[in-house]
Amino acid sequence: MSTRIKIKALLESTQTDIDVTVKGWVRTFRNNQFIALNDGSTNNNIQVVVDFENTDPALLKRITTGAAISVFGHLVPSLGKGQSVEIKAKTIEILGDSDPEKYPLQPKKHSLEFLREIAHLRFRTNTFGAIFRVRHSLAFAIHKFFEERGFVYLHTPIITASDAEGAGETFHVTNFDLNNVPKGDNGEVDFKQDFFGRSANLTVSGQLEGELGAMALSDIYTFGPTFRAENSNTTRHLAEFWMIEPEMAFADINDNMDTAEALLKYVIAYALDKNKEDIEFLTQRLLDEEKQKPQNERSEMTLTEKLQFCLDNNFERLTYTEAIDILKESTPNKKKKFQYLVEGWGTDLQSEHERYLVEKHFKKPVILTDYPKEIKSFYMRQNEDGKTVAAMDILFPGIGEIVGGSQREERLEKLEQRMDELGIPKDELWWYLDTRRFGSCPHAGFGLGFERLVLFVTGMGNIRDVIPFPRFPKNAEF
Amino acid sequence: MSTRIKIKALLESTQTDIDVTVKGWVRTFRNNQFIALNDGSTNNNIQVVVDFENTDPALLKRITTGAAISVFGHLVPSLGKGQSVEIKAKTIEILGDSDPEKYPLQPKKHSLEFLREIAHLRFRTNTFGAIFRVRHSLAFAIHKFFEERGFVYLHTPIITASDAEGAGETFHVTNFDLNNVPKGDNGEVDFKQDFFGRSANLTVSGQLEGELGAMALSDIYTFGPTFRAENSNTTRHLAEFWMIEPEMAFADINDNMDTAEALLKYVIAYALDKNKEDIEFLTQRLLDEEKQKPQNERSEMTLTEKLQFCLDNNFERLTYTEAIDILKESTPNKKKKFQYLVEGWGTDLQSEHERYLVEKHFKKPVILTDYPKEIKSFYMRQNEDGKTVAAMDILFPGIGEIVGGSQREERLEKLEQRMDELGIPKDELWWYLDTRRFGSCPHAGFGLGFERLVLFVTGMGNIRDVIPFPRFPKNAEF
Repeated sequence: MSTRIKIKALLESTQTDIDVTVKGWVRTFRNNQFIALNDGSTNNNIQVVVDFENTDPALLKRITTGAAISVFGHLVPSLGKGQSVEIKAKTIEILGDSDPEKYPLQPKKHSLEFLREIAHLRFRTNTFGAIFRVRHSLAFAIHKFFEERGFVYLHTPIITASDAEGAGETFHVTNFDLNNVPKGDNGEVDFKQDFFGRSANLTVSGQLEGELGAMALSDIYTFGPTFRAENSNTTRHLAEFWMIEPEMAFADINDNMDTAEALLKYVIAYALDKNKEDIEFLTQRLLDEEKQKPQNERSEMTLTEKLQFCLDNNFERLTYTEAIDILKESTPNKKKKFQYLVEGWGTDLQSEHERYLVEKHFKKPVILTDYPKEIKSFYMRQNEDGKTVAAMDILFPGIGEIVGGSQREERLEKLEQRMDELGIPKDELWWYLDTRRFGSCPHAGFGLGFERLVLFVTGMGNIRDVIPFPRFPKNAEF
Repeated sequence: MSTRIKIKALLESTQTDIDVTVKGWVRTFRNNQFIALNDGSTNNNIQVVVDFENTDPALLKRITTGAAISVFGHLVPSLGKGQSVEIKAKTIEILGDSDPEKYPLQPKKHSLEFLREIAHLRFRTNTFGAIFRVRHSLAFAIHKFFEERGFVYLHTPIITASDAEGAGETFHVTNFDLNNVPKGDNGEVDFKQDFFGRSANLTVSGQLEGELGAMALSDIYTFGPTFRAENSNTTRHLAEFWMIEPEMAFADINDNMDTAEALLKYVIAYALDKNKEDIEFLTQRLLDEEKQKPQNERSEMTLTEKLQFCLDNNFERLTYTEAIDILKESTPNKKKKFQYLVEGWGTDLQSEHERYLVEKHFKKPVILTDYPKEIKSFYMRQNEDGKTVAAMDILFPGIGEIVGGSQREERLEKLEQRMDELGIPKDELWWYLDTRRFGSCPHAGFGLGFERLVLFVTGMGNIRDVIPFPRFPKNAEF
């Protein structure tokens, strides 16, 4: 018997009239004759033709949806449409049965909500097979992009004692028996007795540590999990998600925008190339889904067109101030259709405003820069106007903010002054300030939310569907 | 002024007699004339020659170790030895000063212990620059290896409610105010009120979830952080470390060994090729370090030779039972030099035994297979002999276990029986057992400790020196 060949390779093979072995899971079995077999290497199935007249009926009965089988047979050109080759089975071996009465994944359409409850099995559907292969390609393309540009992949810590960034609520990490947390004489928790000898959290961002690397290695990036203990049950938030955070020494906000735009285009192009069939499948899925919506709520472009459009057009770059002017004069603002009316400079932009700019006004990805310092983080570089900082956010259609970044404040005095203003403890961040004390230089970086990128490229609507096992309030199953 | 060129590219350039701009950090400044400049893109510095007679003395004074500068000048062939080009400076700009009285990194040899305390600055040393560039290359090569073989990169969850594997003590993750943990009527912690509605931990392994992916996508791998709340202060353990865990459907223990050996050779070869200068530097560093040891404690091979040796030789494969026979008959066992004498079959191997096999007996990497089931995990496939499981550990010189893996128990009945024997709650792992209920198949996988791999390839002796910000008992700084 020949070695197993993956179905992707078989379907791409130009050779026929050879014996092959394939292994995979039965998707369907029609007329006791045609097995659609999938092994996850591609969205497509290979058709296995069973000589049912000469096959033990007891075996035929075990060829059920979900069963794992090994097939040895002859590869021949296919007469069926949509496939170039098929296998005439010589022997079929059942590796693992799947009781059709009990198997949760029936050969019919299941709701995404239901599939979320059986996340351990949803990999076996067309939709989730495609999503996770695309997710893989996007992750690989990110590493490849940075490798080609000489960035060093830095594993910044997941457990951290610093919560100085104040990016949101953090999860505590502790070794204490929670039934019996040790207290000191003052009645407060005695963290000296905890594993790390101090209070520790899960990281909300690797940026500050990433900057330490960049101030020696020039260009670094992180790609790791980050955490927010926010009680938000939305289609855009997870308690555990993956972020990519590049940090570049000797770079300003323009270099930052150029790198972020190049990165996004590079990885989308990579997935379009490597995952053509998956993205075609997801495009059709979205079309089918949108058929249930009224005409005016459907996308103007298909998923594939939208991705291609991103590659073919420069992202629109404008300042926050210019965006406010556009929004103030916009029809939905004048007609009071916005939930939050845009009345003046200084206000934070809401999702509805971002969507208006991206989806209605510019109809393409937008990079907003130079936000009011009051609505941005302490580490962003203060502009000469005394009012704004060199921040930049990239807004994507249907997603909103996909990238947030800035040139960093490299001037010790300005940085310390801003930390004082915001009450950020300087002694806790002594190491961060040290980089401004010794050989500081202009530098910039950004954070890319990986799941939001996967959402965009797969056309899915809920962030819980683009990570294998989503973590959100009251859910840590699997 | 021309765009900045990275020093690595400059030193590889064959073109001279051109104007260039470089930016980096001053390593040394000799005789008011020769700046050794480094930007982290390579271990090598570029020499910048200063026309000190025509340079403002105030500027000269600011060219100190650690200062960030921008240099515009003329690239010319170098007369100095060990470098092909140098830059005759036309203008030098100080981007960030570094007060020589205060800068912790003096141009002298610092101990690794001291550098660990200033981990935010140690990236700026030759040793740590080399380590983190090598670490990057190893990480990239891992992704590349799997991408070429059609594996899907799966992000398994970091926060998990299941502690069923029992791999060690876990860290609790909670949203509770630790000063005031809510208790139920029974006086026990009321986890229903916690963020996830149940007790949650940091993952010790992504394997079980990885298997779920493999049972649909065929070949997957994880590469993420894992955690152990063990109070061990050794040179081989961290509380937070990174693991690579491939999982392959339709694969047995031999496929598993083949893949693991191919992976290790692939990534070592990649680093040797891409990081030639870094590894040469680390080789010399190790030679210098070992000069302080007595002759008989020094390595027989240099670091580079050791790495090359790994590529050129098949790993020795033998069973646990064969290994026990060798150990029983070994000189240190007979002369009672082992701390733990090997008296018979069934005992777990200690580090001294593994090192004897690898470093003295075979003098090469060793793969041990078919361990007694009592000393291995519940999910490993039970061999026909009723005594052993299809486990495989790869042992490396100086490191010990670098890979641990097995063929997985795919037979529901055998798996449940073993779980019952070990008291592992089946209801908590309903999703894991489901994969054996529906379309089970032979499959295998392993875990590779990333930091142990980096230790091996860099020749470093302490695991805290190969991860940017190590986490261990009583330490979560930075």
